[in-house]
Amino acid sequence: MICKNLSVNSDGHLCFAGADTVRLAAKYGTPLYVMDEDRIRERCRTYLGAMREAFGEAALPLYAGKAAAFRQIYRVMREEGMGIDVVSPGEIYAAASVGFPMERAYFHGNNKTDADIAYAIEQGVGRFVVDNREELDALNRIAGEKRIRQKILLRLTPGIDPHTYAAVATGMVDSKFGVAIETGQAAALTAYALALPNLSLEGFHCHVGSQVFDSDVYLRACAIMLEFAAAMKAEHGYVMRELDLGGGYGVRYLDSDPEIDIAANIRQVGEALRAHCAALGLPVPAVRMEPGRSIVADAGLTLYTVGTFKQILGYKNYVSVDGGMTDNPRFALYRSPYTVYIANRMNEKAALRASVVGRCCESGDILQENVPVPDTVTRGDIAAVLTTGAYNYAMSSTYNRIPRPAMVMLRDGEDKLVVRRESYEDLCRNEL
Amino acid sequence: MICKNLSVNSDGHLCFAGADTVRLAAKYGTPLYVMDEDRIRERCRTYLGAMREAFGEAALPLYAGKAAAFRQIYRVMREEGMGIDVVSPGEIYAAASVGFPMERAYFHGNNKTDADIAYAIEQGVGRFVVDNREELDALNRIAGEKRIRQKILLRLTPGIDPHTYAAVATGMVDSKFGVAIETGQAAALTAYALALPNLSLEGFHCHVGSQVFDSDVYLRACAIMLEFAAAMKAEHGYVMRELDLGGGYGVRYLDSDPEIDIAANIRQVGEALRAHCAALGLPVPAVRMEPGRSIVADAGLTLYTVGTFKQILGYKNYVSVDGGMTDNPRFALYRSPYTVYIANRMNEKAALRASVVGRCCESGDILQENVPVPDTVTRGDIAAVLTTGAYNYAMSSTYNRIPRPAMVMLRDGEDKLVVRRESYEDLCRNEL
Repeated sequence: MICKNLSVNSDGHLCFAGADTVRLAAKYGTPLYVMDEDRIRERCRTYLGAMREAFGEAALPLYAGKAAAFRQIYRVMREEGMGIDVVSPGEIYAAASVGFPMERAYFHGNNKTDADIAYAIEQGVGRFVVDNREELDALNRIAGEKRIRQKILLRLTPGIDPHTYAAVATGMVDSKFGVAIETGQAAALTAYALALPNLSLEGFHCHVGSQVFDSDVYLRACAIMLEFAAAMKAEHGYVMRELDLGGGYGVRYLDSDPEIDIAANIRQVGEALRAHCAALGLPVPAVRMEPGRSIVADAGLTLYTVGTFKQILGYKNYVSVDGGMTDNPRFALYRSPYTVYIANRMNEKAALRASVVGRCCESGDILQENVPVPDTVTRGDIAAVLTTGAYNYAMSSTYNRIPRPAMVMLRDGEDKLVVRRESYEDLCRNEL
Repeated sequence: MICKNLSVNSDGHLCFAGADTVRLAAKYGTPLYVMDEDRIRERCRTYLGAMREAFGEAALPLYAGKAAAFRQIYRVMREEGMGIDVVSPGEIYAAASVGFPMERAYFHGNNKTDADIAYAIEQGVGRFVVDNREELDALNRIAGEKRIRQKILLRLTPGIDPHTYAAVATGMVDSKFGVAIETGQAAALTAYALALPNLSLEGFHCHVGSQVFDSDVYLRACAIMLEFAAAMKAEHGYVMRELDLGGGYGVRYLDSDPEIDIAANIRQVGEALRAHCAALGLPVPAVRMEPGRSIVADAGLTLYTVGTFKQILGYKNYVSVDGGMTDNPRFALYRSPYTVYIANRMNEKAALRASVVGRCCESGDILQENVPVPDTVTRGDIAAVLTTGAYNYAMSSTYNRIPRPAMVMLRDGEDKLVVRRESYEDLCRNEL
């Protein structure tokens, strides 16, 4: 199976982190997000340990909450000693509401409003990762009004094509994010930032993309960023203190996906970083990385109840479930691959192929095509979509006025509700 | 302009339904959905009038709320005497909460759970549009338990390719919706339904797709459905009382899109229907149509504040706004075209081209590519995306923990808040 926290019990039921998924579906109802908290903590420790070993004690992984932001996960991040990458006041609010130490929060975004900036400063966000000149101006002005000197990084695009989907490629010159090194705009923005009185430039940030399996991408990004830092040192006498290499390590959605040894990859980046710093005469910076998907993706799965099994003679088969693009829009958006099982029929031969579709009144509401299923599948069965821990709850909608699912977390074999199922009343709450 | 409710005032500001959009943005903040209630009512009357004229007094248009379902729009539909097409208990709840007469509600969906069925019966939904055999069985059983005889239609796929996007084509044989006439499964399901004691088969439903401009599609669907009804009369002596032709008339997103004369189209379908009925020896059924997009799409626009204008030398330009795929995921999902204006610079020459992008930390967060903009566009400007009345609020998410926009409705030149802006607290409400 694609993650070691999966197994099959003597009833032929899919188990996740030791829990019988069919029993969880019966207990909490469906659709249901299930998260393996032990797995999340294990991944945090992998990053923390590997980064400290590779880059020194000042290194810190920042959990990229856009993958899955909710109150309980910020408690986990606080307890594990992680930093966080936040992208909106909404994420800041959720993290602050459970006492996350906001000096370990890095505030991202290509378009922060004045209100966002003021709110983030009030909440004591540790770093702004500044995207553009308008933001520099607004932040300098608002920091001045609040009589603080705000620490910042500048977001740069190193000009690397990470060979991933266009929708998740962010490090190329032609990007809505950051400023390009290649065009000279990054150097100009650095000079501009250094002259602003209420900002303290701690260093630089880049993010090459998501779902990246090629470790060479990070080595190239690291080299380009350090060369840029050396140029800024030569030009302005400015010494970079922090280097944020972003996130993007790929995870396994299918058995055929490769498995990345994250610790080994980080070690490799660490060696390259030290060698480059020595060659360029730079001190080793405090390194940040921003894992999101690789912390939570395979720590999650989604359970659904099957409503219909439709065999269209001469065409294809459809298994309809009681969720869909509302709780997981990734197939609709990107045709993302997922592994799907009929969780109560794990020991039956999956001899047919079916499209697993959702309940929305929309043909594009598909969770996955061409899924092997047993020919016995029927109304009331439980379908499990694996590796949904990232970008599912976060991207969910209430299209067709379908309430968002509940979420349960598993720790040491115990299940605990962490997000209540949305009610019909919730859906109307702001409607006058 | 693409809709007659648009104009430009003496300040060079875009006006919508007579209201200055720049003033609305200042009053309510951005992002802001704005809906023209007069336009919505006008469209309802067009359908009601044209359908009664073409099909007789028993005809009824059903507003397809999946395009935009919220409490105020159900008040409008109630006042205008429309029926509604609902696709979930969430929609039923919203309509019922404002006193919509539920006998005029038709309940759709390819996967209704037992709980959904029980809820809809309790609310007195007029018709179930039954999709499949599992639903027939469950509905017959639950109706029996509740000691009622539930009126139903059967959803059939007439086997028509409407030449539209795959994601919105629904009338083909290979569909997750309904049962196919071509394969004999529709005839078998009709025989099965007629034998169930707690259900009353009122007729048949089809829906060929969305954003359809080719009126021939409806004429063909009508012919196929009536031939099927004649076959059922010959085989079972069953006389269809209702025929639901679904929705799908296209709307204008761009100046280059054609304008459909809906009344003329309906007249044409009416003539064909009467001729077919006469030829086949069938009484003229009570006709239903299900307009959604064509009722609300051009009755809506979305206002945003510009945060940055990024010119990447040698590449392209980006205008970032304070919303994006969270309030309008249609470009991300389907690469849908939209017309975008800088609402406070309507009289300036739009000499540059830019991608108008959202504030999400995702490269795919694009509202529209290649938009003409003036070279003066700057932080604080107001961008207007037109024709967002359908499938925007309905499909919105809180990805990146971005609260969903407020919505204002305009009637007789007065603006009224109908949906409050979501708060950060709302986003955490169900998180323990």
